[in-house]
Amino acid sequence: MATLLRIDASARTDRSITRDLADRFLEAWKTVEPEARVLARDVGQDPPPVVTADWMSAAFTAPDERIDAMHKALSISDMLIDEVEQADVLLFAAPLYNYGLPASLKAWVDQVVRIKRVFSFDLARGDFPIESSLSGKSVVVLSSRGEFGFHQGGPREGWNHLNPHLQTIATKLFGVAENDYYEVASEYQEFGGDRHEHSKEQARQTASRLGRELAEKSCATCPG
Amino acid sequence: MATLLRIDASARTDRSITRDLADRFLEAWKTVEPEARVLARDVGQDPPPVVTADWMSAAFTAPDERIDAMHKALSISDMLIDEVEQADVLLFAAPLYNYGLPASLKAWVDQVVRIKRVFSFDLARGDFPIESSLSGKSVVVLSSRGEFGFHQGGPREGWNHLNPHLQTIATKLFGVAENDYYEVASEYQEFGGDRHEHSKEQARQTASRLGRELAEKSCATCPG
Repeated sequence: MATLLRIDASARTDRSITRDLADRFLEAWKTVEPEARVLARDVGQDPPPVVTADWMSAAFTAPDERIDAMHKALSISDMLIDEVEQADVLLFAAPLYNYGLPASLKAWVDQVVRIKRVFSFDLARGDFPIESSLSGKSVVVLSSRGEFGFHQGGPREGWNHLNPHLQTIATKLFGVAENDYYEVASEYQEFGGDRHEHSKEQARQTASRLGRELAEKSCATCPG
Repeated sequence: MATLLRIDASARTDRSITRDLADRFLEAWKTVEPEARVLARDVGQDPPPVVTADWMSAAFTAPDERIDAMHKALSISDMLIDEVEQADVLLFAAPLYNYGLPASLKAWVDQVVRIKRVFSFDLARGDFPIESSLSGKSVVVLSSRGEFGFHQGGPREGWNHLNPHLQTIATKLFGVAENDYYEVASEYQEFGGDRHEHSKEQARQTASRLGRELAEKSCATCPG
């Protein structure tokens, strides 16, 4: 049975395109595997706190040497990491805000990426001392953009700093294989009109198809 | 007289490399122009709140139609934008956290980038409807990275999503000319040793030189 962690980052609940895309992905998954487990973390509505110097000190202190205040400083991080560890699929519903991650989602990332929980650090590895402690997960990024043309050769090539950033986080810190990283995006929201409706509809269909395909792939390799 | 807005994003106050680089930049500026005015905004210690759906509704409501709750929702944004408007130079002291902006700094960006204050939107402009309302500012990004080799051709090319993101924000949203965008970075912090000391010392010298040079350039064009 697959466990999916849905992470919503839109500040909006109504008329949120990314929330709609996530609904469609999950509905499609459930047509293939109705018993799939879905954990939901809504950072858009309930943003995690920004990490502090105290958080960092606590994270770098051995668990059995932490005083109570340190355990407390890490309690939200512990909870968020527990969810990530349980998940086979991390589903990010993440609109592009000012050409990057919503601040709430970056706060989530900074709480989750923690030494000895999510990655290990060893200078004996040479110039690449960081190794993810996670493996076998997939990452799906469902995004929405007010503008358009962020692809290679497009008029806004190089302006989208959300997808490449989440891809780096997934592959370098969450142990996700390049082939297990997926993206879907709706564009043109600020322009409205036919281009937007078309882009949104395409994204909906792609999100559904991807949900079905990944569920089929996941179940084909299920032990049961 | 130049006004500089220093924006600190490090969660650390002691042993912060970016804070040290900002100190050196500003000291060097003041050797050229002692009376320069420095505004300080410490988002690392005092992170702005993440923007909410209520914030968005308020921002898209005409100022004279806003109810009290809307003015309140925008009050921090108003304060931060006032600081940006006063500044000739935006000095970001921004460490690389998990290959991107600290969440606190993204929260600042999302509070500042506001329609009718910082940019205008007009579909009559065609496919590029956004135009910054700001102009003539410089942006300086002083960064610190735990690892190294993020440059073109380096072993971590494409992993740094902080500098390119701030450059897009500066040039596309803050009206900064490409030539008025500057970067300095210290690397190797997680490795320590000679490579780190060398990199940090280079960054310090570069920050000082840049502070002096930009002050000289700024004063050469001062009306007085």
